[in-house]
Amino acid sequence: MEREIYDEDHEAFRDVVKEFLKRYATEEKRKQWEADGEIDRATMLAAGEAGIIGLSVPEEFGGAGMLQDYRFRAIVLEETIGAGQGSLAGAFGIQDDLAVPYIVHMGTQEQKEKWLPGMATGEILGALAMTEPGAGSDLRGIKTTAKKVDGGYLVNGAKTFISSGKTADMVVTFVKTGEGNRPDAFSLLILEDGMEGFDHSKKLEKMGFHGWDTAELSFTDVFVPDANLIGGKEGMGFIQLMMNLPLERLSIGVAAAAAGEAAFHWTRDYVLSREAFGERIADFQNTRFRLADMATTVDVMWAYNDRAMMLYKDKKLTAEEAAKVKFWSTDREAELLDVGVQLHGGYGYITEYPIARAYLDARVHRIYGGTNEIMRDLVSRQIVGKK
Amino acid sequence: MEREIYDEDHEAFRDVVKEFLKRYATEEKRKQWEADGEIDRATMLAAGEAGIIGLSVPEEFGGAGMLQDYRFRAIVLEETIGAGQGSLAGAFGIQDDLAVPYIVHMGTQEQKEKWLPGMATGEILGALAMTEPGAGSDLRGIKTTAKKVDGGYLVNGAKTFISSGKTADMVVTFVKTGEGNRPDAFSLLILEDGMEGFDHSKKLEKMGFHGWDTAELSFTDVFVPDANLIGGKEGMGFIQLMMNLPLERLSIGVAAAAAGEAAFHWTRDYVLSREAFGERIADFQNTRFRLADMATTVDVMWAYNDRAMMLYKDKKLTAEEAAKVKFWSTDREAELLDVGVQLHGGYGYITEYPIARAYLDARVHRIYGGTNEIMRDLVSRQIVGKK
Ligand SMILES: Cc1cc2nc3c(=O)[nH]c(=O)nc-3n(C[C@H](O)[C@H](O)[C@H](O)COP(=O)(O)OP(=O)(O)OC[C@H]3O[C@@H](n4cnc5c(N)ncnc54)[C@H](O)[C@@H]3O)c2cc1C
Ligand SMILES: Cc1cc2nc3c(=O)[nH]c(=O)nc-3n(C[C@H](O)[C@H](O)[C@H](O)COP(=O)(O)OP(=O)(O)OC[C@H]3O[C@@H](n4cnc5c(N)ncnc54)[C@H](O)[C@@H]3O)c2cc1C
Repeated sequence: MEREIYDEDHEAFRDVVKEFLKRYATEEKRKQWEADGEIDRATMLAAGEAGIIGLSVPEEFGGAGMLQDYRFRAIVLEETIGAGQGSLAGAFGIQDDLAVPYIVHMGTQEQKEKWLPGMATGEILGALAMTEPGAGSDLRGIKTTAKKVDGGYLVNGAKTFISSGKTADMVVTFVKTGEGNRPDAFSLLILEDGMEGFDHSKKLEKMGFHGWDTAELSFTDVFVPDANLIGGKEGMGFIQLMMNLPLERLSIGVAAAAAGEAAFHWTRDYVLSREAFGERIADFQNTRFRLADMATTVDVMWAYNDRAMMLYKDKKLTAEEAAKVKFWSTDREAELLDVGVQLHGGYGYITEYPIARAYLDARVHRIYGGTNEIMRDLVSRQIVGKK
Repeated sequence: MEREIYDEDHEAFRDVVKEFLKRYATEEKRKQWEADGEIDRATMLAAGEAGIIGLSVPEEFGGAGMLQDYRFRAIVLEETIGAGQGSLAGAFGIQDDLAVPYIVHMGTQEQKEKWLPGMATGEILGALAMTEPGAGSDLRGIKTTAKKVDGGYLVNGAKTFISSGKTADMVVTFVKTGEGNRPDAFSLLILEDGMEGFDHSKKLEKMGFHGWDTAELSFTDVFVPDANLIGGKEGMGFIQLMMNLPLERLSIGVAAAAAGEAAFHWTRDYVLSREAFGERIADFQNTRFRLADMATTVDVMWAYNDRAMMLYKDKKLTAEEAAKVKFWSTDREAELLDVGVQLHGGYGYITEYPIARAYLDARVHRIYGGTNEIMRDLVSRQIVGKK
């Protein structure tokens, strides 16, 4: 089904992204990233140079100023994931959807000046640390504390599962600045690489996204200056997180649609070219029916995600709507990838094939950014009127 | 639901397997196997010593003589998979379900004498090579040829996706000894490690089973003596494969049931011990309903697989029944593992956790041993009477 959300500017940008990927996201590079468990800095700098990251950074700070227009980011996701480069897409996403927004939307003028120019070029890479070993879905159950001291805070605690956490230069960190778990007991502090007592070197071994780091963070009496309190006001952390969640969830929905579409293309191409029993795999009726389902699901996914992007642009996408987009899209993605792997036969299990990697990457989409159970909980509470 | 197929002998054997696993299948060993991409020989020899492999080797050749009784093998699968050691379970399975049976059931007396004693001790490890780059489901589409020469055959061609193919000392290899694709155009030859022109060193990178090798094989004018023709008669290869397929498929069904049960146990334990929002994860109604589904599916899986094992024992399990067991069990396994991963939250994506590894291992169960599409094709042909 033809999509209608993109105009000439978007298509011109798509060419830029394609060109970038051809040059920098080679198979050789991918293997290197997977061996290292992270994307190399040179590639991120090149992405900054090409204008592929830092899209929402205002022009005055060297970015593209695409504040509420997610369509450019959608193009980055479509092309990067479509090129079989899920890890790279993930690293781009953390910078643009999880780190930059906190500075752009909620940072003080001083914070914007300090961080945004480097975040647009890729000289400064960010991450967002909410989850702890003992608290993920239940964010207000975190234990990391930031104790007020002269000129700043002393941070103690630990975070886990932090995407880009090892490679990040700065980590927007969710901490307790108050007692109990009332919404105003939390703040967001920027932790910087090299701060004494801040260790973010331990990478986790995971199912997929092998070229993109996920790290454990630990804080031992880390001194963080007042200047690093996001927005300059204490007790705003929980509200700040809530403000950015619709974007984070929309981004996962769009990534899921992009991966679902890629799965369809890879699978269609594969079954058209492979033969068994004197026929193309594509000719077996089961295969054809699966392809028909896949193609239709891809259409529905885009119709829905495109609509969500346009609502977001007009600041009308609600938290519940973003939650629906996230769980529905990632559930469909899982189905599409599963069928795609299956129709590749044995090759679907071999990670040399993009379908296999995308399958592994997809599994976490139903878990992070708020699990799909938490999404359903949120959506259903509104329906039945439960607090 | 209580299972009734095991008697005292089986339970005594279970203790032996448990003891073996405690001693030899440590977490340290697992990590070593995954780093090496294969199980070390010492472990396989220890398994031979403990009587955990070579179960169907007749007693006169040093085995346990459990020819048609799959229950002992089921115990090995249950315990090994239940211990989070999927790769080890896989390596045991290739030896016992895919290699040994061709010698036990179809080998000449000379072949039995030559191979079986070593296969019971683990000094000789086997593999079975049917699949080629261009032909998997369509077995009769293979291209590897064995040309009759004086005293033997000259083998040329290639195989792929061969489980234990790198570590194997002998590979039961499906080759063309005749023209066209009539059933009698094929034979099974034993290829031996070290034969000139036989390369089985290239390992494939795959989604799961990281501690168990899957290899590409290539044959360039490999001379194979007549003595290595399974059964001593040319043109029997296709029929020989068909004869062992029910066992192979039953074994995958049982492995799927074992993994599904393990997934239930790991998940139940996890959600009982983890808290969020002041409750155990197990207390949320969604979690409880999922657990109820899982527990029920596990009961059904065993009821069905136990029944299939008993029929197999009485030589009454038909090819179609074995195909049903394979596709149905592995489809359920996929569902159970998926829910299990999901209920582990972020930890479900981390391969340190057995649920994550079992999820990755499970994905190939729907693909190898005949894809689930081929299983449904076979079963449905019988129903509708199509050749
Ligand atoms: C690869 C990866 C990258 C990640 N990146 C980041 C990152 O960059 N920054 C960050 O802060 N976090 C990140 N996370 C963490 C992720 O957001 C959390 O794992 C997720 O929110 C779930 O939290 P948890 O793991 O603690 O699971 P838990 O909250 O312990 O949940 C366990 C299970 O219980 C269910 N559950 C919980 N509450 C309820 C309820 N009320 N009703 C019904 N069911 C419920 C959950 O859905 C889940 O199935 C990442 C995780 C992974 C795996
Ligand atoms: C980890 C791993 C281990 C393996 N171990 C071994 C081993 O030890 N020995 C060995 O010989 N092989 C092994 N295999 C190979 C495995 O058995 C084959 O991959 C499998 O049989 C499918 O063959 P294929 O990959 O060529 O897929 P294809 O046959 O090309 O099939 C591609 C797709 O088409 C579908 N399809 C094919 N025919 C039909 C039809 N008639 N109707 C409808 N759909 C159809 C298939 O279901 C599949 O979805 C292994 C594979 C893997 C991934």
